[in-house]
Amino acid sequence: MVIDWSDGNKSSLYSLWLRDHCQMPESRNLDNGQRLFSVKDLPSNITIEKAYKDAEGNVCVMFQPENHLSVFCQKWLRENCYELNSHFEDRSEKSKKLWKKDSFDNGLPFISYDLMHSDDTSKVLALRSLREYGFFVLNDVPTQDGQVLKVISELGFTRETNYGALFEVRTEVNPNNLAFTNLGLGSHTDNPYRDPVPTVQLLHCLESSTEGGESILVDGFKAASILREESQENFLSLANTWINYRFSDSKTELRSRVPMIDLNDKKEVIKVRYNNRSIDTINVPQDKMRSFYKAYRHWSEIIERDELKIQFKLSEGDLMLFDNTRVMHARTEFSKSGKRHLQGAYSDLDGLYSLLNRLEMKNNND
Amino acid sequence: MVIDWSDGNKSSLYSLWLRDHCQMPESRNLDNGQRLFSVKDLPSNITIEKAYKDAEGNVCVMFQPENHLSVFCQKWLRENCYELNSHFEDRSEKSKKLWKKDSFDNGLPFISYDLMHSDDTSKVLALRSLREYGFFVLNDVPTQDGQVLKVISELGFTRETNYGALFEVRTEVNPNNLAFTNLGLGSHTDNPYRDPVPTVQLLHCLESSTEGGESILVDGFKAASILREESQENFLSLANTWINYRFSDSKTELRSRVPMIDLNDKKEVIKVRYNNRSIDTINVPQDKMRSFYKAYRHWSEIIERDELKIQFKLSEGDLMLFDNTRVMHARTEFSKSGKRHLQGAYSDLDGLYSLLNRLEMKNNND
Repeated sequence: MVIDWSDGNKSSLYSLWLRDHCQMPESRNLDNGQRLFSVKDLPSNITIEKAYKDAEGNVCVMFQPENHLSVFCQKWLRENCYELNSHFEDRSEKSKKLWKKDSFDNGLPFISYDLMHSDDTSKVLALRSLREYGFFVLNDVPTQDGQVLKVISELGFTRETNYGALFEVRTEVNPNNLAFTNLGLGSHTDNPYRDPVPTVQLLHCLESSTEGGESILVDGFKAASILREESQENFLSLANTWINYRFSDSKTELRSRVPMIDLNDKKEVIKVRYNNRSIDTINVPQDKMRSFYKAYRHWSEIIERDELKIQFKLSEGDLMLFDNTRVMHARTEFSKSGKRHLQGAYSDLDGLYSLLNRLEMKNNND
Repeated sequence: MVIDWSDGNKSSLYSLWLRDHCQMPESRNLDNGQRLFSVKDLPSNITIEKAYKDAEGNVCVMFQPENHLSVFCQKWLRENCYELNSHFEDRSEKSKKLWKKDSFDNGLPFISYDLMHSDDTSKVLALRSLREYGFFVLNDVPTQDGQVLKVISELGFTRETNYGALFEVRTEVNPNNLAFTNLGLGSHTDNPYRDPVPTVQLLHCLESSTEGGESILVDGFKAASILREESQENFLSLANTWINYRFSDSKTELRSRVPMIDLNDKKEVIKVRYNNRSIDTINVPQDKMRSFYKAYRHWSEIIERDELKIQFKLSEGDLMLFDNTRVMHARTEFSKSGKRHLQGAYSDLDGLYSLLNRLEMKNNND
């Protein structure tokens, strides 16, 4: 393990981890661990006078000209070593289990709502499935009006939008969205015309007596990785071309300018957006139009490949929850006879992952 | 005006604009304007047989092998011309009015709540100020508990978080955040440890009888542009280095991995995040640590320059609303005698801009 002491970055060597494992340093608030000084408060001529190991095995560093002694316990240093540890909260494809149709031979992540409701172990199981696969399905959720909002309140927070805190998915007359017809819908992510996009979607099945109307899920990160394998050029075209999405109705006029594939600093996929219904006029320089459409068509073809799709029918009481920045959803057309009624809502990953982090930390401390 | 007809991108030439200005094409739903086909449904050997102007002056294009006639009215073509029009919903620095202390010699954007409440013109004025300058202040907002949520409901939607739908900003014993003490706070954006970050913050002053506790705002896009002018290298270091932010309390464990300066495809700034209290251990390759800290220190120094800061005291009934992806806020320390009580809440830009877009479209049609 090598730590570069010479850069004077004493703030980098403090961390909230210290609270759990070592003594809280004076430079942080005792109650909440927040840092009490700004990097600009450090003298620009900062140097290390000496560094040594004390009797308890802590690494001690004496900084000048402030005569400030920083003490780092070994556990903290190990947990924050640049070489041993990866970044946390990495939402990129690298930290996920990418999947296609045949990845679930042992069954889909269906979890009993009763168990999740009452037992932290099931909650961890469900939330880990969200983190790793991008979705889970709860069974036997009471088919009561508004229940989807109760489920969110057990896990995180509702993101209210122009569709309401909760929206009804059933066949409507003059709907403001094709989702509210009996048409089949191709694989898509929701609300790409919204910035910030809702990062979690829930769909709760209250009634299901039509023919058809089956749910389809596709791992958008897997689809993006296939696009990259088949054509690096097309992959980069979609990552580097920002386009407009748009949604209008009588009260709403939502617009965004975003890429279909979002990359992080390491050029790993962190977010996908795909919704052919709401892509607006493509405003790309004329000399890039042809290559953009080539890439867009290729990506659309991959997304609709059968080997990528898992398909199942939501029964009454099933509630599907998925990462709307990764997993695309679709449905098959359904008959006009019988009833199909879902209630949907949006939430955000940060609240759900916060709960998962707390539960995992609790388990580690048990 | 040149339009490349040869790329077969007929979907690119339709748009929701058509609904307002021309006839709705058959390829879109009549009720909601959503596109009814996917790009992959177009034949790969698509060609244009002929293009001509009809008697009404529309441009008509006959596509083969489908024998599909697309008709584009001149108004739509002008509005969607690649060369005449810029992208809409461009949140980048390019579409903003960047400011510093001396930019408001004619006064800050203070707007009467009574007027905004009752009059669309004042609403447009307020929301344009948000879009152009990143903030506005409402005066004479009733100092009632929960009023901040009522104000949001007139403009958009509340983003609930672990702090609640609404949070109290006043001196607390054992606070979970330094905001809830009487300490001064350096300029920062809120919640960079949350992904997606809340894009709008509101602070409503209910009581103000302390010494100090003045509000400070800084245009983060202006600060970023100064950093780029003074050191392109430091600017790029912050844009290209993704770091961890973190917030912990007894129930919450929020983590993010994001850059301090977010760029779009044209390398323009679209988002800034800065909060020295919640930056976690910097996990950067060892050989980049020194250059990162150099850039981070430089940026911190710029943010605290007096010529960038506007400073004013919120009076009882004032409500400040700002773009949390652009405008940094701070406060001066305040005395322990007297009372200072704000109620805060988060919202998102998409809802507010949707309302502004609708009101502007309505004005154009009047």
